[in-house]
Amino acid sequence: MLNRENQPEYDLSALRALVEHRPEDLPGFLQGIHSADLADWLQSASADEREHVFSVLDAEDRAELFQFSTDEVATDLVGEATVEDLVDVVEHLPADDVVDLLALANQGVAEEVLDRVDIERAEGLRRLSMYESDTAGGLMTTEFATLPEGVRVGDAIKALRMEDERTIEEEAGIFVVDGAGRPVGWVSDRDLVTTPIHTDIEEVMAEIPTTVGPMVDQEEAAMAVSRYNLQALAVVDEEGVLLGVITAEDASDVFEEEAEEDIRKLVGTSTEAQTHLPVLRRVRQRLPMQALTVLGGLATAHILRLAMPAGEGSVTSDLLRYIPIIIGLAGNVGIQASTILVRAFATGEVTPEREGSVLVSEVLTGMLIGVLCGVATAVVASLTEGGIDGQYAFGAAVGTSVAIAVTWASFLGSIIPMGCRRTNIDPAIVAGPFLITLSDISGTSIFMLSAHLILEATG
Amino acid sequence: MLNRENQPEYDLSALRALVEHRPEDLPGFLQGIHSADLADWLQSASADEREHVFSVLDAEDRAELFQFSTDEVATDLVGEATVEDLVDVVEHLPADDVVDLLALANQGVAEEVLDRVDIERAEGLRRLSMYESDTAGGLMTTEFATLPEGVRVGDAIKALRMEDERTIEEEAGIFVVDGAGRPVGWVSDRDLVTTPIHTDIEEVMAEIPTTVGPMVDQEEAAMAVSRYNLQALAVVDEEGVLLGVITAEDASDVFEEEAEEDIRKLVGTSTEAQTHLPVLRRVRQRLPMQALTVLGGLATAHILRLAMPAGEGSVTSDLLRYIPIIIGLAGNVGIQASTILVRAFATGEVTPEREGSVLVSEVLTGMLIGVLCGVATAVVASLTEGGIDGQYAFGAAVGTSVAIAVTWASFLGSIIPMGCRRTNIDPAIVAGPFLITLSDISGTSIFMLSAHLILEATG
Repeated sequence: MLNRENQPEYDLSALRALVEHRPEDLPGFLQGIHSADLADWLQSASADEREHVFSVLDAEDRAELFQFSTDEVATDLVGEATVEDLVDVVEHLPADDVVDLLALANQGVAEEVLDRVDIERAEGLRRLSMYESDTAGGLMTTEFATLPEGVRVGDAIKALRMEDERTIEEEAGIFVVDGAGRPVGWVSDRDLVTTPIHTDIEEVMAEIPTTVGPMVDQEEAAMAVSRYNLQALAVVDEEGVLLGVITAEDASDVFEEEAEEDIRKLVGTSTEAQTHLPVLRRVRQRLPMQALTVLGGLATAHILRLAMPAGEGSVTSDLLRYIPIIIGLAGNVGIQASTILVRAFATGEVTPEREGSVLVSEVLTGMLIGVLCGVATAVVASLTEGGIDGQYAFGAAVGTSVAIAVTWASFLGSIIPMGCRRTNIDPAIVAGPFLITLSDISGTSIFMLSAHLILEATG
Repeated sequence: MLNRENQPEYDLSALRALVEHRPEDLPGFLQGIHSADLADWLQSASADEREHVFSVLDAEDRAELFQFSTDEVATDLVGEATVEDLVDVVEHLPADDVVDLLALANQGVAEEVLDRVDIERAEGLRRLSMYESDTAGGLMTTEFATLPEGVRVGDAIKALRMEDERTIEEEAGIFVVDGAGRPVGWVSDRDLVTTPIHTDIEEVMAEIPTTVGPMVDQEEAAMAVSRYNLQALAVVDEEGVLLGVITAEDASDVFEEEAEEDIRKLVGTSTEAQTHLPVLRRVRQRLPMQALTVLGGLATAHILRLAMPAGEGSVTSDLLRYIPIIIGLAGNVGIQASTILVRAFATGEVTPEREGSVLVSEVLTGMLIGVLCGVATAVVASLTEGGIDGQYAFGAAVGTSVAIAVTWASFLGSIIPMGCRRTNIDPAIVAGPFLITLSDISGTSIFMLSAHLILEATG
């Protein structure tokens, strides 16, 4: 547990109560709240509550809140603000964050804001906004400290004191550049503090082990930061002229983002925070992968029909051809649900209090996917199983059973990680192989049983 | 691509040539090489080459190399060193790295080294080594800058100049502590540089949004760093006294580690760098998950036998009962191979030059797993399919076909990510759903075809 004994235990409900009953106390209350916590609460707050909170924050606090907010809350924050508000906020943000902020505003507003920012800064911002967001250029900031060669430590300290501390990237250290603007060395702030002021900067500066171009993939840039344990990586143009810097913190954000992207792509869903999405959007995002599985399963059933023509064996052997669909779909749906939950537990996205509602919405999602895949399977089976007496009843039985087995799988995939969390078993182990095996056995049994029952009842 | 136009293109082969033909030039050559690159080359170097390189490095370079090395190279480095060498190296390492280094030495040597380190430092190191490595205590360093309340910025700068810059954690900023040693604020180095020296430290210091206890899981500590965007997180005891600090870089390492652990646990294999392991160790690590799948598949086959007794339909319908094993195993083996490769590409573990040998070793791994699972399936099928004429031939055909289909799946799981890399398609998408569908269809077809051919040939 984080140590919070010395702090009052505030949460969203405390904020809600204030907004509703004592709005005049809100500004004082927000003074004592860290922007990271506030951003977290606003994620679950209503649009009205958000608006109320924004309205009492000054530009500096808004800038900080923006930096900690998800895109959803940030979009609201930008949408609520007037052009004047945004101009003020932008003055407290580093350049890379300004570009992110303006990307959330509509184009007209963004242009108006840029027109009212200091000309030199606006030019830099316009240049910066031209890089793709997943490149080194999109990741870097252009506002950081540089020094010419040949100065002394004391000059460096003086120069740093002149910079605008509201927007400069403090964690990038200082790059030493030659006459053409090419980086030749790097100095940490600690070096400046601990070295006598008459020392030549060349004596304290570290070599630059590597640089990257602005079009390089952001993951490659982040890997360079991690490989050489850099506090700041220089981004340079083709002539080697310094364009911007990427900090270790930027790199760490990229790693978090990419690891989540990889894991979520592996299970076929988008990279957004799934458990906060409406059920229908979850279905839409996960369906393409399931559609592929249904297609694959139907193709397999067709191949198996070549080995054994329809209606030649018992009903059971006809049903067996559809087992690949069940195993594929149930496995996918279960692994999707469990992977999303395991990650959501790890990142703190799903707290114990949210478990109940997340379980319901995940099972609903699985049920809808199951019904859609079941209908598709029923239609194809009805049309292709011409060799079976009562091919339509057969198709309907197969489709219904697919829907039931898939719903069951989404329940398993949600309940197992939750059970792991309660019993302190690492969900990453149990939710993988164990879940798949359980879902294979139980899904197949449920499918066969359900199809037989339906066929008996209808036939 | 990283920009290296201005640097000579060195690699392991250049190092090898020097060690063999011009060993006297080695020290000069190593001067120009970054420890991160050297650590990378040594990963693939022979024991002799490693020893040769270590012997020409001084204590400071060894300390740096240690910080960039994998456990394997680091163990070699520690093993080759005398107690004197280690005492010298330890003087250039931050406390948390010293604890890691001594954990790689044998206990007697570690004790000897501690006996010869400055008494105060040794005491701190002994305390630090008592925390589990995956806790906040195991992650923190105990050597960082603190200041008492009530000092001025100038005093802070003076105090920092007195610290031993070889071992102090430079990226942790400075914690301000009260009389009892509890952290009350935090100051960045940049603040010290840019603030007039007569300013009270209280005026520049930032509030501390949160602290953690030393027994807290390292992931939770890393999450606190990320949540509040901290440069350094304070680790405190029950009375709130500052014990150590965790830097943003430590946190980022934890995230990388945990994300890899999660993804690898999901596919049932250990967290070590798989593509560097001997084939037999890969088989041993991945087999438990496959054994579970075989058990599940055999259980499913048994349930299906209840629905349709053995020998009642055609041979094909008997074979159909084993499709769940094929789909489960082939899916697992393929996803294991592809997930490992996708991550190994992302982290740079598998370079294009290594692809050929990695493909061969992965397919060999899959083949061995397939043979073992095939034998198990053959034995169980022979014993349980009593209703089939020629039950042993049937069992053998099923088992052999399992082995063939699984080998095929490991080939698919390796070749698809490699193809993606060549064609610049994101392997994380294709290697998931697409791979599973392809492996379901092709694995089932191969299984049915192979089993029929074997049964025809033998029967």
